[in-house]
Amino acid sequence: MKKGKLYLIPVPIHSEDEFNSKFIPPYLTETINKLNIFAVENIRTSRRFLRKINPNFNIDQTTFHIIDKRTEDSEYSNIINSLTKGYDVGVMSESGCPGIADPGQKLCKLAHDKNIITKPLIGPSSIILALMASGLNGQRFKFHGYLPIEKENRIKEIKKIRQNTGAHIFIETPYRNQKVYDDLVQNLKPDDRKLCVASDLTGINESISTKKISELKQDKITLKKYPTIFILE
Amino acid sequence: MKKGKLYLIPVPIHSEDEFNSKFIPPYLTETINKLNIFAVENIRTSRRFLRKINPNFNIDQTTFHIIDKRTEDSEYSNIINSLTKGYDVGVMSESGCPGIADPGQKLCKLAHDKNIITKPLIGPSSIILALMASGLNGQRFKFHGYLPIEKENRIKEIKKIRQNTGAHIFIETPYRNQKVYDDLVQNLKPDDRKLCVASDLTGINESISTKKISELKQDKITLKKYPTIFILE
Repeated sequence: MKKGKLYLIPVPIHSEDEFNSKFIPPYLTETINKLNIFAVENIRTSRRFLRKINPNFNIDQTTFHIIDKRTEDSEYSNIINSLTKGYDVGVMSESGCPGIADPGQKLCKLAHDKNIITKPLIGPSSIILALMASGLNGQRFKFHGYLPIEKENRIKEIKKIRQNTGAHIFIETPYRNQKVYDDLVQNLKPDDRKLCVASDLTGINESISTKKISELKQDKITLKKYPTIFILE
Repeated sequence: MKKGKLYLIPVPIHSEDEFNSKFIPPYLTETINKLNIFAVENIRTSRRFLRKINPNFNIDQTTFHIIDKRTEDSEYSNIINSLTKGYDVGVMSESGCPGIADPGQKLCKLAHDKNIITKPLIGPSSIILALMASGLNGQRFKFHGYLPIEKENRIKEIKKIRQNTGAHIFIETPYRNQKVYDDLVQNLKPDDRKLCVASDLTGINESISTKKISELKQDKITLKKYPTIFILE
Protein backbone atom coordinates (compact mmCIF):
# COMPACT_ATOMS: atom_id res chain seq x y z
CA MET A 1 0.00 0.00 0.00
CA LYS A 2 1.19 3.51 -0.78
CA LYS A 3 2.06 5.39 2.40
CA GLY A 4 0.95 8.92 3.14
CA LYS A 5 3.34 11.86 3.35
CA LEU A 6 4.13 13.94 6.40
CA TYR A 7 3.90 17.62 5.39
CA LEU A 8 5.79 20.11 7.57
CA ILE A 9 3.72 23.29 7.34
CA PRO A 10 5.14 26.62 8.52
CA VAL A 11 2.55 29.10 9.82
CA PRO A 12 2.82 32.91 10.13
CA ILE A 13 5.08 34.30 12.83
CA HIS A 14 3.45 37.73 13.13
CA SER A 15 0.41 38.43 15.26
CA GLU A 16 -2.69 36.48 14.26
CA ASP A 17 -4.63 39.74 13.90
CA GLU A 18 -2.29 40.79 11.11
CA PHE A 19 -2.88 37.66 9.02
CA ASN A 20 -1.93 38.35 5.42
CA SER A 21 -2.32 35.69 2.78
CA LYS A 22 0.31 37.48 0.68
CA PHE A 23 2.95 36.00 2.98
CA ILE A 24 1.84 32.44 2.13
CA PRO A 25 3.25 30.63 -0.94
CA PRO A 26 0.24 29.39 -2.96
CA TYR A 27 1.44 25.75 -2.91
CA LEU A 28 1.12 25.78 0.88
CA THR A 29 -2.56 26.71 0.63
CA GLU A 30 -3.07 24.03 -2.04
CA THR A 31 -1.41 21.41 0.14
CA ILE A 32 -3.42 22.36 3.21
CA ASN A 33 -6.69 22.16 1.25
CA LYS A 34 -5.97 18.51 0.43
CA LEU A 35 -5.30 17.45 4.02
CA ASN A 36 -7.76 16.35 6.67
CA ILE A 37 -5.43 15.03 9.35
CA PHE A 38 -3.20 17.39 11.27
CA ALA A 39 -0.73 17.05 14.13
CA VAL A 40 -0.70 20.44 15.84
CA GLU A 41 0.65 22.25 18.87
CA ASN A 42 -2.69 23.93 19.60
CA ILE A 43 -6.02 22.91 18.08
CA ARG A 44 -7.83 26.23 18.54
CA THR A 45 -5.22 28.38 16.81
CA SER A 46 -4.72 25.75 14.11
CA ARG A 47 -8.45 25.80 13.34
CA ARG A 48 -8.36 29.59 13.08
CA PHE A 49 -5.34 29.42 10.76
CA LEU A 50 -7.06 26.88 8.50
CA ARG A 51 -10.16 29.12 8.30
CA LYS A 52 -7.94 32.07 7.37
CA ILE A 53 -6.23 30.06 4.65
CA ASN A 54 -9.62 28.87 3.39
CA PRO A 55 -12.87 30.22 4.93
CA ASN A 56 -14.65 27.10 3.63
CA PHE A 57 -12.17 24.64 5.11
CA ASN A 58 -14.11 21.63 6.36
CA ILE A 59 -13.00 21.74 9.98
CA ASP A 60 -15.70 19.24 11.08
CA GLN A 61 -14.29 16.56 8.77
CA THR A 62 -10.75 17.17 10.04
CA THR A 63 -8.88 15.15 12.64
CA PHE A 64 -6.51 17.02 14.94
CA HIS A 65 -3.83 15.31 17.02
CA ILE A 66 -2.05 17.39 19.63
CA ILE A 67 1.74 17.10 19.73
CA ASP A 68 3.48 18.78 22.63
CA LYS A 69 5.70 17.84 25.58
CA ARG A 70 2.90 15.82 27.19
CA THR A 71 1.92 13.77 24.14
CA GLU A 72 2.08 10.05 24.81
CA ASP A 73 3.66 7.48 22.54
CA SER A 74 0.25 6.00 21.75
CA GLU A 75 -0.84 9.27 20.14
CA TYR A 76 2.28 9.32 17.99
CA SER A 77 1.48 5.73 17.00
CA ASN A 78 -2.01 6.81 15.94
CA ILE A 79 -0.56 9.44 13.63
CA ILE A 80 2.03 7.06 12.18
CA ASN A 81 -0.74 4.49 11.62
CA SER A 82 -2.70 6.97 9.54
CA LEU A 83 0.41 7.65 7.46
CA THR A 84 1.12 3.94 7.03
CA LYS A 85 -2.47 3.43 5.84
CA GLY A 86 -1.90 5.98 3.10
CA TYR A 87 -3.30 9.19 4.61
CA ASP A 88 -1.29 12.40 4.33
CA VAL A 89 -0.76 14.33 7.57
CA GLY A 90 0.14 18.00 8.09
CA VAL A 91 2.25 19.19 11.03
CA MET A 92 1.81 22.73 12.34
CA SER A 93 3.28 24.46 15.35
CA GLU A 94 1.95 27.67 16.90
CA SER A 95 4.14 29.80 14.66
CA GLY A 96 7.01 29.34 12.25
CA CYS A 97 8.56 26.08 11.15
CA PRO A 98 7.53 22.87 12.93
CA GLY A 99 10.44 20.78 14.19
CA ILE A 100 12.70 23.78 14.78
CA ALA A 101 12.53 24.94 18.39
CA ASP A 102 8.93 23.68 18.18
CA PRO A 103 7.12 20.32 18.29
CA GLY A 104 7.23 18.08 15.23
CA GLN A 105 10.72 16.66 15.51
CA LYS A 106 9.67 13.41 17.19
CA LEU A 107 6.94 12.78 14.62
CA CYS A 108 9.46 13.28 11.80
CA LYS A 109 11.87 10.95 13.50
CA LEU A 110 9.22 8.21 13.73
CA ALA A 111 8.23 8.82 10.09
CA HIS A 112 11.84 8.23 8.95
CA ASP A 113 11.92 5.00 10.96
CA LYS A 114 8.93 3.80 8.91
CA ASN A 115 10.26 5.10 5.57
CA ILE A 116 7.47 7.67 5.38
CA ILE A 117 8.30 10.66 3.21
CA THR A 118 8.67 13.94 5.13
CA LYS A 119 7.94 16.97 2.99
CA PRO A 120 9.05 20.40 4.27
CA LEU A 121 7.17 23.40 2.88
CA ILE A 122 8.50 26.93 2.45
CA GLY A 123 7.53 29.46 5.10
CA PRO A 124 8.78 31.89 7.70
CA SER A 125 11.60 30.98 10.06
CA SER A 126 12.36 33.76 12.53
CA ILE A 127 15.89 32.37 12.94
CA ILE A 128 16.66 32.63 9.22
CA LEU A 129 14.88 35.98 8.71
CA ALA A 130 16.83 37.50 11.60
CA LEU A 131 20.14 36.09 10.42
CA MET A 132 19.59 37.23 6.79
CA ALA A 133 18.91 40.79 7.89
CA SER A 134 21.44 41.00 10.72
CA GLY A 135 24.59 41.48 8.64
CA LEU A 136 26.20 38.89 10.93
CA ASN A 137 28.00 35.66 10.04
CA GLY A 138 25.72 33.46 7.93
CA GLN A 139 28.64 31.19 6.97
CA ARG A 140 28.94 29.72 10.42
CA PHE A 141 26.31 29.99 13.12
CA LYS A 142 24.89 28.18 16.09
CA PHE A 143 21.34 28.13 17.38
CA HIS A 144 21.22 27.75 21.16
CA GLY A 145 17.46 27.85 21.75
CA TYR A 146 16.60 29.49 25.07
CA LEU A 147 19.22 30.76 27.50
CA PRO A 148 18.96 29.54 31.10
CA ILE A 149 16.15 31.26 33.03
CA GLU A 150 18.14 31.67 36.25
CA LYS A 151 20.20 34.89 36.08
CA GLU A 152 23.48 33.44 37.31
CA ASN A 153 23.35 30.52 34.89
CA ARG A 154 22.31 32.81 32.06
CA ILE A 155 25.33 35.03 32.59
CA LYS A 156 27.58 31.97 32.78
CA GLU A 157 26.14 30.75 29.46
CA ILE A 158 26.58 34.19 27.82
CA LYS A 159 30.25 34.22 28.85
CA LYS A 160 30.71 30.69 27.52
CA ILE A 161 29.07 31.51 24.20
CA ARG A 162 31.30 34.54 23.73
CA GLN A 163 34.41 32.39 23.66
CA ASN A 164 33.41 30.87 20.32
CA THR A 165 33.52 32.50 16.91
CA GLY A 166 30.67 32.70 14.41
CA ALA A 167 27.14 33.94 15.01
CA HIS A 168 25.27 32.76 18.10
CA ILE A 169 21.50 32.79 17.89
CA PHE A 170 19.07 32.47 20.76
CA ILE A 171 15.41 33.12 21.41
CA GLU A 172 13.49 34.29 24.42
CA THR A 173 9.89 34.47 25.56
CA PRO A 174 8.77 38.08 25.06
CA TYR A 175 8.36 38.96 28.75
CA ARG A 176 11.99 38.09 29.41
CA ASN A 177 13.44 40.07 26.46
CA GLN A 178 14.62 42.95 28.62
CA LYS A 179 16.33 40.73 31.19
CA VAL A 180 18.24 38.82 28.53
CA TYR A 181 19.17 42.00 26.71
CA ASP A 182 20.44 43.70 29.87
CA ASP A 183 22.43 40.63 30.88
CA LEU A 184 24.01 40.49 27.44
CA VAL A 185 25.01 44.14 27.29
CA GLN A 186 26.22 44.22 30.89
CA ASN A 187 28.28 41.05 30.64
CA LEU A 188 30.03 41.59 27.34
CA LYS A 189 33.12 43.70 26.95
CA PRO A 190 32.65 47.15 25.37
CA ASP A 191 34.21 46.13 22.06
CA ASP A 192 33.47 45.85 18.34
CA ARG A 193 31.51 42.65 18.73
CA LYS A 194 27.93 43.02 17.66
CA LEU A 195 24.47 42.16 18.86
CA CYS A 196 21.45 41.96 16.61
CA VAL A 197 18.02 42.29 18.20
CA ALA A 198 15.26 41.28 15.80
CA SER A 199 11.69 41.75 17.08
CA ASP A 200 8.22 41.08 15.70
CA LEU A 201 9.62 39.73 12.44
CA THR A 202 7.18 40.04 9.50
CA GLY A 203 4.83 41.95 11.85
CA ILE A 204 3.87 45.61 11.61
CA ASN A 205 6.26 46.48 14.42
CA GLU A 206 9.23 44.61 12.95
CA SER A 207 12.57 46.03 14.02
CA ILE A 208 16.02 44.64 13.32
CA SER A 209 18.97 46.43 14.82
CA THR A 210 22.64 45.41 14.82
CA LYS A 211 25.02 47.48 16.95
CA LYS A 212 28.43 47.16 18.52
CA ILE A 213 28.46 46.22 22.19
CA SER A 214 30.39 49.44 22.87
CA GLU A 215 27.53 51.44 21.32
CA LEU A 216 24.83 49.51 23.18
CA LYS A 217 26.55 50.13 26.50
CA GLN A 218 26.03 53.87 26.03
CA ASP A 219 22.25 53.77 25.62
CA LYS A 220 19.65 52.22 27.86
CA ILE A 221 17.34 50.48 25.41
CA THR A 222 13.85 49.32 26.37
CA LEU A 223 12.62 46.29 24.44
CA LYS A 224 8.94 45.73 23.81
CA LYS A 225 7.31 42.38 24.47
CA TYR A 226 7.39 41.04 20.91
CA PRO A 227 8.84 37.65 19.98
CA THR A 228 12.54 38.37 19.64
CA ILE A 229 15.66 36.74 18.23
CA PHE A 230 19.09 37.70 19.57
CA ILE A 231 22.23 37.16 17.51
CA LEU A 232 25.66 37.74 19.00
CA GLU A 233 28.81 37.72 16.95
CA MET B 1 15.62 62.63 3.53
CA LYS B 2 13.89 59.28 3.89
CA LYS B 3 16.34 56.46 3.31
CA GLY B 4 15.63 53.46 1.11
CA LYS B 5 15.22 49.93 2.47
CA LEU B 6 17.44 46.98 1.80
CA TYR B 7 15.22 44.02 0.87
CA LEU B 8 16.69 40.54 1.34
CA ILE B 9 15.02 38.46 -1.36
CA PRO B 10 15.21 34.65 -1.29
CA VAL B 11 15.11 32.97 -4.70
CA PRO B 12 14.11 29.38 -5.56
CA ILE B 13 16.52 26.61 -4.60
CA HIS B 14 15.35 24.02 -7.10
CA SER B 15 16.53 23.86 -10.69
CA GLU B 16 15.74 26.94 -12.75
CA ASP B 17 13.95 24.78 -15.32
CA GLU B 18 11.43 23.78 -12.67
CA PHE B 19 10.46 27.36 -11.78
CA ASN B 20 7.08 27.38 -10.12
CA SER B 21 5.48 30.64 -9.04
CA LYS B 22 3.38 28.69 -6.51
CA PHE B 23 6.48 28.49 -4.31
CA ILE B 24 6.73 32.30 -4.14
CA PRO B 25 4.77 34.26 -1.52
CA PRO B 26 2.80 36.97 -3.40
CA TYR B 27 4.32 39.82 -1.33
CA LEU B 28 7.75 38.88 -2.64
CA THR B 29 6.56 39.37 -6.23
CA GLU B 30 4.93 42.68 -5.26
CA THR B 31 8.15 43.88 -3.61
CA ILE B 32 10.31 42.87 -6.57
CA ASN B 33 7.99 44.71 -8.99
CA LYS B 34 8.62 47.97 -7.12
CA LEU B 35 12.41 47.71 -7.20
CA ASN B 36 14.81 48.84 -9.90
CA ILE B 37 18.14 48.50 -8.14
CA PHE B 38 19.48 45.07 -7.22
CA ALA B 39 22.67 43.75 -5.63
CA VAL B 40 23.09 40.24 -7.00
CA GLU B 41 25.51 37.33 -7.07
CA ASN B 42 25.01 36.76 -10.81
CA ILE B 43 23.37 39.25 -13.18
CA ARG B 44 22.35 36.75 -15.88
CA THR B 45 20.46 34.39 -13.58
CA SER B 46 18.97 37.32 -11.66
CA ARG B 47 17.57 38.77 -14.90
CA ARG B 48 16.07 35.40 -15.77
CA PHE B 49 14.50 35.14 -12.30
CA LEU B 50 12.99 38.63 -12.59
CA ARG B 51 11.50 37.73 -15.99
CA LYS B 52 10.01 34.56 -14.52
CA ILE B 53 8.50 36.53 -11.64
CA ASN B 54 7.14 39.10 -14.10
CA PRO B 55 7.54 38.60 -17.88
CA ASN B 56 7.09 42.37 -18.33
CA PHE B 57 9.75 43.33 -15.77
CA ASN B 58 11.59 46.37 -17.09
CA ILE B 59 15.11 44.91 -17.09
CA ASP B 60 16.51 47.77 -19.21
CA GLN B 61 15.55 50.32 -16.55
CA THR B 62 17.11 48.23 -13.79
CA THR B 63 20.54 48.68 -12.24
CA PHE B 64 22.43 45.56 -11.19
CA HIS B 65 25.40 45.61 -8.82
CA ILE B 66 27.40 42.42 -8.47
CA ILE B 67 28.24 41.32 -4.93
CA ASP B 68 30.65 38.45 -4.57
CA LYS B 69 34.06 37.73 -3.08
CA ARG B 70 35.78 40.07 -5.57
CA THR B 71 33.50 43.07 -5.06
CA GLU B 72 35.43 46.19 -4.10
CA ASP B 73 34.49 48.57 -1.32
CA SER B 74 33.68 51.30 -3.84
CA GLU B 75 30.88 49.17 -5.29
CA TYR B 76 29.42 48.62 -1.83
CA SER B 77 29.61 52.39 -1.33
CA ASN B 78 27.64 52.92 -4.55
CA ILE B 79 24.86 50.68 -3.28
CA ILE B 80 24.80 52.32 0.15
CA ASN B 81 24.69 55.73 -1.57
CA SER B 82 21.56 54.74 -3.47
CA LEU B 83 19.95 53.62 -0.22
CA THR B 84 20.96 56.84 1.55
CA LYS B 85 19.41 58.83 -1.29
CA GLY B 86 16.10 57.10 -0.71
CA TYR B 87 16.15 54.30 -3.27
CA ASP B 88 15.14 50.78 -2.22
CA VAL B 89 17.55 48.00 -3.15
CA GLY B 90 16.92 44.25 -3.44
CA VAL B 91 19.59 41.66 -2.63
CA MET B 92 19.49 38.27 -4.34
CA SER B 93 21.94 35.38 -4.28
CA GLU B 94 22.04 32.53 -6.80
CA SER B 95 19.60 30.48 -4.77
CA GLY B 96 18.04 30.56 -1.34
CA CYS B 97 18.43 33.25 1.30
CA PRO B 98 20.99 36.01 0.73
CA GLY B 99 23.39 36.53 3.62
CA ILE B 100 23.28 32.90 4.73
CA ALA B 101 26.18 30.93 3.27
CA ASP B 102 25.81 33.36 0.35
CA PRO B 103 26.75 36.99 -0.44
CA GLY B 104 24.72 39.79 1.10
CA GLN B 105 26.07 39.81 4.64
CA LYS B 106 28.55 42.63 4.09
CA LEU B 107 25.94 44.84 2.47
CA CYS B 108 23.58 44.28 5.41
CA LYS B 109 26.39 45.09 7.81
CA LEU B 110 27.08 48.39 6.04
CA ALA B 111 23.35 49.16 5.97
CA HIS B 112 23.11 48.77 9.76
CA ASP B 113 26.09 51.11 10.16
CA LYS B 114 24.09 53.77 8.28
CA ASN B 115 20.79 53.04 10.06
CA ILE B 116 19.24 51.74 6.86
CA ILE B 117 16.36 49.35 7.42
CA THR B 118 17.07 45.76 6.34
CA LYS B 119 13.92 43.87 5.43
CA PRO B 120 14.12 40.06 5.17
CA LEU B 121 11.48 38.38 3.01
CA ILE B 122 10.08 34.87 3.40
CA GLY B 123 11.48 32.21 1.09
CA PRO B 124 13.26 28.89 0.88
CA SER B 125 16.26 28.10 3.08
CA SER B 126 17.70 24.67 2.33
CA ILE B 127 19.17 24.59 5.85
CA ILE B 128 15.79 25.10 7.51
CA LEU B 129 13.84 22.84 5.11
CA ALA B 130 16.32 20.02 5.69
CA LEU B 131 16.30 20.47 9.46
CA MET B 132 12.46 20.62 9.64
CA ALA B 133 12.12 17.35 7.75
CA SER B 134 15.10 15.52 9.24
CA GLY B 135 13.58 14.57 12.59
CA LEU B 136 16.86 15.70 14.14
CA ASN B 137 17.48 18.22 16.92
CA GLY B 138 15.89 21.55 16.00
CA GLN B 139 16.30 22.85 19.54
CA ARG B 140 20.04 23.14 19.29
CA PHE B 141 21.98 23.07 16.03
CA LYS B 142 25.09 24.37 14.40
CA PHE B 143 25.69 25.31 10.78
CA HIS B 144 29.28 24.65 9.73
CA GLY B 145 29.12 25.69 6.07
CA TYR B 146 31.48 23.61 3.93
CA LEU B 147 33.74 20.90 5.34
CA PRO B 148 37.45 21.10 4.43
CA ILE B 149 38.14 19.99 0.85
CA GLU B 150 41.31 18.07 1.69
CA LYS B 151 40.40 14.50 2.77
CA GLU B 152 42.61 14.32 5.83
CA ASN B 153 41.38 17.67 7.17
CA ARG B 154 37.79 16.75 6.38
CA ILE B 155 38.04 13.56 8.42
CA LYS B 156 39.64 15.49 11.26
CA GLU B 157 36.76 17.97 11.18
CA ILE B 158 34.15 15.19 11.10
CA LYS B 159 35.71 13.61 14.19
CA LYS B 160 35.79 16.99 15.94
CA ILE B 161 32.16 17.74 15.11
CA ARG B 162 31.07 14.39 16.48
CA GLN B 163 32.29 15.26 19.95
CA ASN B 164 29.58 17.86 20.36
CA THR B 165 25.86 17.30 20.96
CA GLY B 166 23.00 18.78 18.96
CA ALA B 167 22.50 18.72 15.20
CA HIS B 168 25.44 19.60 12.96
CA ILE B 169 24.57 20.91 9.53
CA PHE B 170 26.90 21.25 6.58
CA ILE B 171 26.66 21.77 2.87
CA GLU B 172 28.69 20.55 -0.06
CA THR B 173 29.05 21.33 -3.73
CA PRO B 174 27.13 18.60 -5.61
CA TYR B 175 30.15 16.96 -7.25
CA ARG B 176 31.71 16.28 -3.85
CA ASN B 177 28.56 14.83 -2.24
CA GLN B 178 29.76 11.24 -2.52
CA LYS B 179 33.19 11.94 -1.04
CA VAL B 180 31.73 13.71 1.96
CA TYR B 181 29.10 11.03 2.47
CA ASP B 182 31.67 8.21 2.29
CA ASP B 183 34.01 10.00 4.70
CA LEU B 184 31.15 10.52 7.13
CA VAL B 185 29.93 6.94 7.11
CA GLN B 186 33.42 5.47 7.22
CA ASN B 187 34.66 7.68 10.04
CA LEU B 188 31.73 7.51 12.42
CA LYS B 189 31.18 4.64 14.82
CA PRO B 190 28.44 2.14 13.87
CA ASP B 191 26.02 3.44 16.51
CA ASP B 192 22.57 4.97 16.95
CA ARG B 193 23.69 8.40 15.87
CA LYS B 194 21.96 9.58 12.78
CA LEU B 195 22.76 11.21 9.49
CA CYS B 196 20.21 13.04 7.37
CA VAL B 197 20.98 13.49 3.67
CA ALA B 198 18.62 16.02 2.06
CA SER B 199 19.03 16.47 -1.70
CA ASP B 200 17.38 18.66 -4.34
CA LEU B 201 15.07 20.27 -1.78
CA THR B 202 11.83 21.62 -3.31
CA GLY B 203 12.93 20.07 -6.64
CA ILE B 204 11.28 17.18 -8.46
CA ASN B 205 14.00 14.81 -7.25
CA GLU B 206 13.80 15.88 -3.61
CA SER B 207 14.88 13.16 -1.21
CA ILE B 208 15.29 13.40 2.54
CA SER B 209 16.58 10.37 4.36
CA THR B 210 17.57 10.02 8.01
CA LYS B 211 19.25 6.77 9.08
CA LYS B 212 21.39 5.45 11.88
CA ILE B 213 25.12 5.29 11.14
CA SER B 214 24.95 1.55 11.87
CA GLU B 215 22.33 1.16 9.12
CA LEU B 216 24.25 3.31 6.64
CA LYS B 217 27.39 1.26 7.14
CA GLN B 218 25.58 -1.80 5.78
CA ASP B 219 24.58 -0.30 2.45
CA LYS B 220 26.72 1.36 -0.16
CA ILE B 221 24.66 4.40 -1.15
CA THR B 222 25.34 6.39 -4.32
CA LEU B 223 24.40 10.06 -4.12
CA LYS B 224 23.37 12.03 -7.16
CA LYS B 225 24.86 15.42 -7.95
CA TYR B 226 22.06 17.55 -6.53
CA PRO B 227 22.60 20.36 -4.02
CA THR B 228 22.69 18.52 -0.71
CA ILE B 229 22.49 19.29 2.99
CA PHE B 230 24.00 16.88 5.52
CA ILE B 231 22.84 16.84 9.13
CA LEU B 232 24.62 14.74 11.71
CA GLU B 233 23.26 14.23 15.21
